[in-house]
Amino acid sequence: MAEPEWESLEQCLEKHLPPADLREVKRLLYGKETRKLDLPGRAFESAAEGDFELQGYAFEAAEEQLRGPRTVRVGLVQNRIPLPADAPVAKQVSALHRRIESIVEVAAMCGVNIICFQEAWTMPFAFCTREKLPWTEFAESAEDGPTTSFCQKSTYYMEGNLGHPVFQTPFGRIAVNICYGRHHPLNWLLYSVNGADIIFNPSATIGALSESMWPIEARNAAIANHCFTCAINRVGKEYFPHEFTSGDGKKAHKDFGYFYGSSYVAAPDSSRTPGLSRTRDGLLVAELNLNLCRQVNDVWNFKMTGRYDMYARELAEAVKPNYRPHIVKE
Amino acid sequence: MAEPEWESLEQCLEKHLPPADLREVKRLLYGKETRKLDLPGRAFESAAEGDFELQGYAFEAAEEQLRGPRTVRVGLVQNRIPLPADAPVAKQVSALHRRIESIVEVAAMCGVNIICFQEAWTMPFAFCTREKLPWTEFAESAEDGPTTSFCQKSTYYMEGNLGHPVFQTPFGRIAVNICYGRHHPLNWLLYSVNGADIIFNPSATIGALSESMWPIEARNAAIANHCFTCAINRVGKEYFPHEFTSGDGKKAHKDFGYFYGSSYVAAPDSSRTPGLSRTRDGLLVAELNLNLCRQVNDVWNFKMTGRYDMYARELAEAVKPNYRPHIVKE
Repeated sequence: MAEPEWESLEQCLEKHLPPADLREVKRLLYGKETRKLDLPGRAFESAAEGDFELQGYAFEAAEEQLRGPRTVRVGLVQNRIPLPADAPVAKQVSALHRRIESIVEVAAMCGVNIICFQEAWTMPFAFCTREKLPWTEFAESAEDGPTTSFCQKSTYYMEGNLGHPVFQTPFGRIAVNICYGRHHPLNWLLYSVNGADIIFNPSATIGALSESMWPIEARNAAIANHCFTCAINRVGKEYFPHEFTSGDGKKAHKDFGYFYGSSYVAAPDSSRTPGLSRTRDGLLVAELNLNLCRQVNDVWNFKMTGRYDMYARELAEAVKPNYRPHIVKE
Repeated sequence: MAEPEWESLEQCLEKHLPPADLREVKRLLYGKETRKLDLPGRAFESAAEGDFELQGYAFEAAEEQLRGPRTVRVGLVQNRIPLPADAPVAKQVSALHRRIESIVEVAAMCGVNIICFQEAWTMPFAFCTREKLPWTEFAESAEDGPTTSFCQKSTYYMEGNLGHPVFQTPFGRIAVNICYGRHHPLNWLLYSVNGADIIFNPSATIGALSESMWPIEARNAAIANHCFTCAINRVGKEYFPHEFTSGDGKKAHKDFGYFYGSSYVAAPDSSRTPGLSRTRDGLLVAELNLNLCRQVNDVWNFKMTGRYDMYARELAEAVKPNYRPHIVKE
């Protein structure tokens, strides 16, 4: 496996492929080309000062007679932890708030309507250690904790864990499929059945485990459900004070592995943005014309052709303890 | 869009990328590298004589204490129609039989246990014309038609269209998810729930429509369901005697578009083989160690972590005519 410092697939292809081949490779890998967004110069200056990457793309849709374009800008944020995992809790949290604040300010300059941070963004990804302390101290009230207060300055934040709720916002219907939830196609489907235009997937995942699945799962979900999906991963390596194992029969270690960033947005027409860097903090701005969802639906009709009544019946049977799989033997 | 003669993604990357970068790009795109199979020289000679491509790869699994490796070789066949679509029906069918026979002979030399041809392999892909004649004449008895007789010489053939049956064969449990069925994640899931180790997806699909979805859907299915999937597409352009439209508001035409081949096998560990050519007939031989399915299941546990009882309930609700989507408003 390559070293973490290998920057990104896109950078490598752009460096080595002749323009005509590059165009064709991108078409095969990423579908219809996304237009580069013309973001303000001061946003790029601030990103350079803050040492994070800034990229912007627009997904376009055909003109319609009865509806104007319904454009919304989403921002995906990926970042390292600025302080080591054994620094005092309050210092870690406030350093993260400051770091995110500088990125959110750039997102605001870019006209972002909805911003999504990585999973467990207010702390190191400490679940892998299977220890409680001091990680439980990172827990906050979702009503009035310091992170909620911080977010109320500029952003929009909701959560839910009952079924597959979709949130009607002024910028479209959104849903949040957290981390591991991306592995189950039915999570994406049920958010879509409830009307989601955009499904966010804040994640924390490492190279050895999942890097070749990362470009597939959220993208397949956008295709299968005629919606936009936003896949966000954190960046860097996080060292913990005590050794722990990963339940994989290997030696104990002090880090979970290398979080490879590579956040991206995928569209219902099977196109996608390039990924953010594997190594740097970054903000990905994507302008989505939500009309594309219905337009692609009108071409492919998966919601019409899916035999959901049959699936529901078969699945209800399959979860019964006495279910006998439908196996035909000679 | 590139011309049909652009050969393949793999060939382009191999031509231009330095070895270390190529290795990393392949890791990101295709996961853990598949070992090249050492196929017999006379198989390659026959393939060259017959002017079709031959590639072979093996997916490996870890050794287990209680089970030996369960290896099976599958063959995926992609091909052009050898005669034009307005040639006499019987001549077209027998030319296809002869073409496939030459490929099947090579598959036998390669020790293939299960072979899968492309969708509607005994005819041009005439459904797009929405005409009946002469295409209905290609229909045959599945019990004793000439194609069934032909297949009974060397191969194994079964079909079904009721629910999601899985066929127990001496070479593992297999299922067939035909063509458009690949777009619905629940089809793959339900075959897997019924125990499929390998799901074949014989398809017929064209570049403008689906080429950037092709590498995503079957691969996601292998990942999500801890099984192998085999995606097969036909090759070339097929011209029909009468003009027809594709229901896309565009002018009538005599061809459906360019079938881009690119058949591949995907594994549960998110690795995959390279694709066959976009332009040439071909045979892809893949040796699968079916033990990999349970091994990956033991790492990721999607079948254990999927909340299938909840999905079944939510889906059963969602198909009711009076279903109210779960939308949270401010």
